[in-house]
Amino acid sequence: MVETIQWTAGGVVMIDQTKLPLEAVYVTCKDYHEVAEAIRSMVIRGAPAIGVAAAMGVAIGVLRAPDENLDGSMEAICEELAGTRPTAVNLFWAIDRMKKLYAGLRGKSPAGIRAALVAEAQQVKLEDIAINRAMGRHGAPLIPDGKTVLTHCNAGALATAGYGTALGVIRAAVEAGKKIDVFADETRPFLQGARLTAWELQQDGIETTIITDNMAGHFLKSGRIGCVVVGADRIAANGDVANKVGTYSVAVLAKENGIPFYVAAPVSTLDLTLDSGDKIPIEQRSPKEVTEVFGVRVAPEGIAVQNPAFDVTPNRYVTAIITERGVAAAPYEESLRRLAGSV
Amino acid sequence: MVETIQWTAGGVVMIDQTKLPLEAVYVTCKDYHEVAEAIRSMVIRGAPAIGVAAAMGVAIGVLRAPDENLDGSMEAICEELAGTRPTAVNLFWAIDRMKKLYAGLRGKSPAGIRAALVAEAQQVKLEDIAINRAMGRHGAPLIPDGKTVLTHCNAGALATAGYGTALGVIRAAVEAGKKIDVFADETRPFLQGARLTAWELQQDGIETTIITDNMAGHFLKSGRIGCVVVGADRIAANGDVANKVGTYSVAVLAKENGIPFYVAAPVSTLDLTLDSGDKIPIEQRSPKEVTEVFGVRVAPEGIAVQNPAFDVTPNRYVTAIITERGVAAAPYEESLRRLAGSV
Repeated sequence: MVETIQWTAGGVVMIDQTKLPLEAVYVTCKDYHEVAEAIRSMVIRGAPAIGVAAAMGVAIGVLRAPDENLDGSMEAICEELAGTRPTAVNLFWAIDRMKKLYAGLRGKSPAGIRAALVAEAQQVKLEDIAINRAMGRHGAPLIPDGKTVLTHCNAGALATAGYGTALGVIRAAVEAGKKIDVFADETRPFLQGARLTAWELQQDGIETTIITDNMAGHFLKSGRIGCVVVGADRIAANGDVANKVGTYSVAVLAKENGIPFYVAAPVSTLDLTLDSGDKIPIEQRSPKEVTEVFGVRVAPEGIAVQNPAFDVTPNRYVTAIITERGVAAAPYEESLRRLAGSV
Repeated sequence: MVETIQWTAGGVVMIDQTKLPLEAVYVTCKDYHEVAEAIRSMVIRGAPAIGVAAAMGVAIGVLRAPDENLDGSMEAICEELAGTRPTAVNLFWAIDRMKKLYAGLRGKSPAGIRAALVAEAQQVKLEDIAINRAMGRHGAPLIPDGKTVLTHCNAGALATAGYGTALGVIRAAVEAGKKIDVFADETRPFLQGARLTAWELQQDGIETTIITDNMAGHFLKSGRIGCVVVGADRIAANGDVANKVGTYSVAVLAKENGIPFYVAAPVSTLDLTLDSGDKIPIEQRSPKEVTEVFGVRVAPEGIAVQNPAFDVTPNRYVTAIITERGVAAAPYEESLRRLAGSV
């Protein structure tokens, strides 16, 4: 399996997700500005992967910072990285984790501080893979055998440090011997489904079919879909889920057709400071993502475009939330708080 | 306004809808095979426009057929045209209309027969524009003032002989002085919304915003959409509506959010021989429409694709069906039969 993100002596190496699957190109971010730009431009994307990238961004930033201004540098690094994308809470979670570690290192030598931050960033990555494996174990039993699983966007190895959240659950179900195949919404405008989910599942030999986003309803009505599994960018205390735009539509259509709708996300995706999803900030991205596909214009010049990158699925459409600590069901205020508090 | 399709001395001239809005290119179909290919390849598309093209295809076929084999030619022409696309019933309606006329001309001179068929094909076109204007008059009062109208695919001037069905209702509402703007689903894979609806509404100065298909739910939930208006390719006796894939999803999301969902279609779109939409044949199109955008590959090689061109919206999601003879509401078995029988 390809590595989504790696810490190397030369910098933070990422596979460029804007170019897949046409080209498998790696970019090396040599300082934290380049890491921030890679997150902004979606060279790396997916809430957990953004968390890992942010942790490595902090580490490389402090690694390159002058001894005499470590505190000031740390502040500027965290501020720039936090400003890259507003919706995925894992970004802020990872930055906070690095900040807390840094605060605890007060009085240590600059070399010691740097070494600790670099080790922590690599630890965030390793933990993420372990978390996804655990999510897979908890989620696999929920997947109906002998049916198709529908997924939206890419919540796979490429959206994480490896294995994936939603695709991790699918992988674990396949490993458990279930006979399933996958329908991947292509997920306009960035085409994470057609480009990334299709590519990584194809590499694993998991039978995958691409559909356009507007076909999901047709197939949910057809009877062949056994369940929906998606990832999440932020989950409020009441179980409202922010995820890639289009998730809300799929959730409504699943409910309308009596099909379970599962969200797979690590505990770091929970934002218990928000009592509902209405308060989750929704990123608006460039109109060009909609009007151009790989640089080819598909819409008239001068036309208006809306491009919210995420939407919010109210908790009533969510059958269960699969985390590394277990599966939460309604009422989510209780079940999520219990999972967040446990270890 | 641009002409979608025209009868000329040199052949049937159509604006090439596979190239819009990047290029406004006209193609001339010099025989009925070229008309059939234009329908198949979606140079012309949209149920009413396909009907006009089929009528003109029959006319040009008989015009070019040898005197001694007019009957055999007529049969071959109708068979080839009927085999181009299976879902839009207007195709079969137009061919039947030409067949009935032809049968009534038995005994006339070949020149007389040809002249009558050519005149009839042009009449089908003229009637279509008048029908759309009437639909606009009936539909405009239903459009809420001061809100956004959401539409899917292109049911506009380009999908008809002119003015449009769904977009005709929108144009009529604007002409009536209503302050509305339009959200156009881009409508993958062929991008009729981003390419065609956006282009023709922009030319009319009607404020239009493109969204990807998977954003429709988000905006239907947001409160800014006052109603949905779409066209139809075939409507069963019970009011089930076959239309561009994704229509079903929009209808479910509209109902879930308490927003009226209107279908605008001429009486020629009714197929009262089918008691429900389950019996409407759904065309499967080439995987390349999904995996390539204007020739640019967007998915991994060798991946499976589903590409149903249409879906069926059950009647319970349809608030009303707007025709040139008036507005039908549930129970549709009665209201549609009444409209079909009236004149």
